[in-house]
Amino acid sequence: MKGSSIAPGARIGSDVHIGDFTTIHENVVLGDGCTIGDHCVIGAPAGDAAPLQIGSGSNVRSHSVLYAGSTLGSGLETGHHVLIRAGTRAGEGLRVGSFSDIEGACEIGDFARLHSYAHVGRGSKIGHFVWLYSLTILTNDPLPFSKLHRPVVLEDGVVVAVGATLYPGAIMRLGSMAAARSMVKGEVPPGCIVSGDHQVRGHVTKLKDLESGWRHPWMRHSGDAYPEKAQERIRQLLESILATA
Amino acid sequence: MKGSSIAPGARIGSDVHIGDFTTIHENVVLGDGCTIGDHCVIGAPAGDAAPLQIGSGSNVRSHSVLYAGSTLGSGLETGHHVLIRAGTRAGEGLRVGSFSDIEGACEIGDFARLHSYAHVGRGSKIGHFVWLYSLTILTNDPLPFSKLHRPVVLEDGVVVAVGATLYPGAIMRLGSMAAARSMVKGEVPPGCIVSGDHQVRGHVTKLKDLESGWRHPWMRHSGDAYPEKAQERIRQLLESILATA
Amino acid sequence: MKGSSIAPGARIGSDVHIGDFTTIHENVVLGDGCTIGDHCVIGAPAGDAAPLQIGSGSNVRSHSVLYAGSTLGSGLETGHHVLIRAGTRAGEGLRVGSFSDIEGACEIGDFARLHSYAHVGRGSKIGHFVWLYSLTILTNDPLPFSKLHRPVVLEDGVVVAVGATLYPGAIMRLGSMAAARSMVKGEVPPGCIVSGDHQVRGHVTKLKDLESGWRHPWMRHSGDAYPEKAQERIRQLLESILATA
Repeated sequence: MKGSSIAPGARIGSDVHIGDFTTIHENVVLGDGCTIGDHCVIGAPAGDAAPLQIGSGSNVRSHSVLYAGSTLGSGLETGHHVLIRAGTRAGEGLRVGSFSDIEGACEIGDFARLHSYAHVGRGSKIGHFVWLYSLTILTNDPLPFSKLHRPVVLEDGVVVAVGATLYPGAIMRLGSMAAARSMVKGEVPPGCIVSGDHQVRGHVTKLKDLESGWRHPWMRHSGDAYPEKAQERIRQLLESILATA
Repeated sequence: MKGSSIAPGARIGSDVHIGDFTTIHENVVLGDGCTIGDHCVIGAPAGDAAPLQIGSGSNVRSHSVLYAGSTLGSGLETGHHVLIRAGTRAGEGLRVGSFSDIEGACEIGDFARLHSYAHVGRGSKIGHFVWLYSLTILTNDPLPFSKLHRPVVLEDGVVVAVGATLYPGAIMRLGSMAAARSMVKGEVPPGCIVSGDHQVRGHVTKLKDLESGWRHPWMRHSGDAYPEKAQERIRQLLESILATA
Repeated sequence: MKGSSIAPGARIGSDVHIGDFTTIHENVVLGDGCTIGDHCVIGAPAGDAAPLQIGSGSNVRSHSVLYAGSTLGSGLETGHHVLIRAGTRAGEGLRVGSFSDIEGACEIGDFARLHSYAHVGRGSKIGHFVWLYSLTILTNDPLPFSKLHRPVVLEDGVVVAVGATLYPGAIMRLGSMAAARSMVKGEVPPGCIVSGDHQVRGHVTKLKDLESGWRHPWMRHSGDAYPEKAQERIRQLLESILATA
């Protein structure tokens, strides 16, 4: 941790590794077994007194900036150059891809996974086991520019494919999916696919890869990419999505 | 400013705060009351002798790279991981969101606001009170790849919503608006909305948020988000846009 | 190189310049005449023993992260905040724009050029003299989310314009072009243009800038933007693309 500094008030767990040129500010609570990469700013002051809490076993990669005032569960994993602003509450197992930006005042469930350049607008609500692929954006201003604020809601098991735009106030219900490059402008019913300009296309169970024969939802074929402790919840999520078909 | 360095030739105003691991190069002129975050490179050498001038009261957040050879007015505010290349001339009150890239040789008016991942191609001209939302791009090569260079012009009061692409040579006239994900391929008349594949849709005064009843242009309902000293200019801008309806 | 460190095992050529706060890890081989900017992580450990090799005359700009286990040819040039993961093999003259992300296990030919925010998915294959413009993405999961992996192939001389999305398994043949914002979903025949939702539009030789009268492919009018040693190969590439008209 050449050149790094840990403020006296920070509470650092055991077996923590801090990279070079990284600053850990006051009011940071870092769980056991965390790794923080080089060139990070952890607990950047955000004008209020709430601490930044990062759960055990987390891995924050280089050049990331995490503001004070957020609570991020155990097993957090970020890519490089990630930004998480104040007031974010995330469950366990959150993954945030490189260059992604979580604008704060957000609620995020367990095991959510964001790829790179995902932009989560301020105030968004994201459930458990949600996927946001690269270059997706969750907006919140219905009349840009205005002071109105109508953030997006993504329920459990939602998948947002690359380049999709979630319009202000969009609500994606349980297990629904936004196709690549789609524009989601209102409510998407449970388990449904939306593509193009908010065209609802039927249930995700109809989505099949012809080469492999694999069918959606993803819990059928790829749920084992998650840790063992998540498996029972994934099975329950699958059942609840299938029940909407 | 642990680890930071200020080159002997740099002229630094009073009450300036420099973050950790930041380098202020020669040929930088920093106004009074500025804050520069951690891990920044300010005045990166750009092969010519022009200084980088940053006006008073500016706030440059961490991991930003600002090249020599630009003049940025007072009250500049950048997000994190921002890149501004040489030859950018911007007025007062410029805001540049995280991960945005201003490619240089640009002219930008007063109080322009860019959200995150906005890409301003080299040579772009941007007026006063312009908005560029996230993932917007101002291109300049009409025949990619070619050595041709036809940058974009955005006049005063223009709004470019999320994900819009400005094609080379596009001209958006006073107070016009590019809808989310639109492709702007030529001239947009004053006060008009363009959406989809350069479809001109009528005047922005027709744009209304049903829930709030608020109508565009934004100066009607949200101009007070700007500082007091900008209010008279905002009123005049509103009048001139309404006159085009 | 204030604050920088070079691991004892790293092999550094002559006339190399290392910026401030940069770490050169073990297992890095840097050719002669290279410049590495500030705040970089070069040879970030990637779990295997392969070195990171960077050819002579390369220029890696600030805040970039290059993992161990890649071989990058001479004359590499990166923008700022660039990420290149392990297992990337690139030829000479690669340019990678700011905020771009090469996800590893990729093959890239000579003189490929990426603009900013280009996302190259893991396993992609990219030929010689290929262009990827800003906000382009090369995906690889045909059924997101799934464990399936079907990366993209771009043959020599391909141009991918701004905002285009390459769907999993897409193959762009010799000299073909994806128009701005297009969605490429299968095979694009040699020399053809694809636009919109994978609509094949004819041969690139029909593409002409009316103002200049210049015609595609780009080797006709702008090949001299490449170094002299590339000119004979550019001439041969032009001939082979014209032969597909």
